[in-house]
Amino acid sequence: MRVAILAHEQFPDRAKTAVGILRYSDSEVVAVLDRTRAGERVRDHVPDVQDAPIVASIDDVGAIDALVVGIAPIGGGFDETWRPDVRGALERGCDVVAGLHYFLADDEEFAALAADHGCTIRDLRRPPDDLTVGDGTAADVDADVVLTVGTDCSSGKMTTTFELVAAARERGVDAAPVPTGQTGILVDGEGIAVDRVVADFAAGAVECMVQRRARDHDLLVVEGQGALAHPAYSGVTASILHGAMPDRLVLCHVAGREAVHGYEHVAVPPPEAYADLYERVAAPVEPSGVVAGALNTQHLDDDGAQAAVEAYGAALDAPATDPVRFGVEPVLDAVIA
Amino acid sequence: MRVAILAHEQFPDRAKTAVGILRYSDSEVVAVLDRTRAGERVRDHVPDVQDAPIVASIDDVGAIDALVVGIAPIGGGFDETWRPDVRGALERGCDVVAGLHYFLADDEEFAALAADHGCTIRDLRRPPDDLTVGDGTAADVDADVVLTVGTDCSSGKMTTTFELVAAARERGVDAAPVPTGQTGILVDGEGIAVDRVVADFAAGAVECMVQRRARDHDLLVVEGQGALAHPAYSGVTASILHGAMPDRLVLCHVAGREAVHGYEHVAVPPPEAYADLYERVAAPVEPSGVVAGALNTQHLDDDGAQAAVEAYGAALDAPATDPVRFGVEPVLDAVIA
Repeated sequence: MRVAILAHEQFPDRAKTAVGILRYSDSEVVAVLDRTRAGERVRDHVPDVQDAPIVASIDDVGAIDALVVGIAPIGGGFDETWRPDVRGALERGCDVVAGLHYFLADDEEFAALAADHGCTIRDLRRPPDDLTVGDGTAADVDADVVLTVGTDCSSGKMTTTFELVAAARERGVDAAPVPTGQTGILVDGEGIAVDRVVADFAAGAVECMVQRRARDHDLLVVEGQGALAHPAYSGVTASILHGAMPDRLVLCHVAGREAVHGYEHVAVPPPEAYADLYERVAAPVEPSGVVAGALNTQHLDDDGAQAAVEAYGAALDAPATDPVRFGVEPVLDAVIA
Repeated sequence: MRVAILAHEQFPDRAKTAVGILRYSDSEVVAVLDRTRAGERVRDHVPDVQDAPIVASIDDVGAIDALVVGIAPIGGGFDETWRPDVRGALERGCDVVAGLHYFLADDEEFAALAADHGCTIRDLRRPPDDLTVGDGTAADVDADVVLTVGTDCSSGKMTTTFELVAAARERGVDAAPVPTGQTGILVDGEGIAVDRVVADFAAGAVECMVQRRARDHDLLVVEGQGALAHPAYSGVTASILHGAMPDRLVLCHVAGREAVHGYEHVAVPPPEAYADLYERVAAPVEPSGVVAGALNTQHLDDDGAQAAVEAYGAALDAPATDPVRFGVEPVLDAVIA
């Protein structure tokens, strides 16, 4: 599938979904839309992902099958400055895929255009309508379950999840991700955006996914969300922790991050304290331990990154790595031990 | 307002909302509908609340203004055996009030009947449509904020909340509740059912309520939900804890409860360990301490209740009481100290 990714004014650092697609999706990315970077290329900013030109609008994009909204602002609203691009895609008969809280398929103009031009709008965050309360039984599945947890949002949980699954498969382990956010769902093709689910059903949604995927695989890597002491998202995190009932945890952290992203008045506890917090909250429902650490070192040079990973591992008293920079193997070794 | 309360097969022990209305609402309860107890009276089962006859169906109820659905099964679904009573109420021109996840106003038959008979269906759990992500600022309000938390569902958080507010008002403190569940909303007239909110917005919903009510009151008592180590509801609990950013916590517990209600394979941690868990999870966002305990002793005799309250206070190293049986004053003293 050939896609263009909308990431206006946010590429690459605030465009998690865009970067996730570039790194992990099988789709061919024809262009990235960011009007502040038109004329540049993906590789100017992100190494080791597929390259593509950055353009100003949908009018500058060649033949594609779908336009993907590759950014999700806090609150998940639709930015009206994106409307011409979405409209333009639909008028060309392209599908539109988005992971916003605002559902594009419920937008009158977009729904009418999609009907007129025979194309589809896919809102990745729309939950299935058969969700209900969990029953606390995910621990009974016949698969090993690993959960990536974090010290903050955007700390590498999705990346670590997909790197772990890929590395496990290379070793011949029948592994599968359990995507819980829009990017993971887009990459994998399945999953539920747990943050969009009715709060009462969030743990149940995760439990249901774990039970379904465990039938077909030996190792599940559940993609965590948020952080357990995040001022706004801790509920989603707790629901995934207790819904998945994981055997083991991998703690993801951004080197040097000391305050919660977007909530600078809230400090991030030290990694070893955060690991302890996850274990204490998990224990009454299903005991689990942080067996490895994944550190995002993208803002450090090679020497700094190596030192930061060593310090992180020492703090956690567990194997650690930067899965993108140094490979995920040390985490995989700990996880399948 | 004259109301009848539907509580088929659940009154009184599984009918939290019904009992909450009988205890705290200003409405006159004309009858309780429970087909398994028809002919009995409320007082046969629950002391110290307003009395009313228990009847088999809406056909046995005299003049009322509204039928209230006073039970909410796990999952919040609508039981089709209740349909004749809801239909009967609407056909008589009575309003219907419900706190289910299933919205009665969206039911085709009920919506048509309400339109035909000029009456209203009020779904207490329907969230406002302007909710968004919290910004972690509830701690800045100009009011003292107390949160009732629990070791399980149905452990007395709503009761303790309303007892605390009433007792504080009697002492001349300008106190108000922050209702977060259907019963509290029904009693108070305002509030948001946090368990029905999109998970990403749950903390934001609480923050928004705290900020609004803090403008007009000096002491807010936020009604907690679920429990922090509950297999299904911990997400709602964490969202309220971090969204409300309370100054102080009151831990509610049911004497002798050792397993999570409805999840008998999951043990409830000891109260002192649970208090510690709440404090540890609160701390990174806003430090808070368990300053008092509320114990539900309804299944004990007087001597047993007294001993249980003393043991509970000793375990928490804090004042404790059964707010219904012995009065809430010891908790109030600790909360406004």
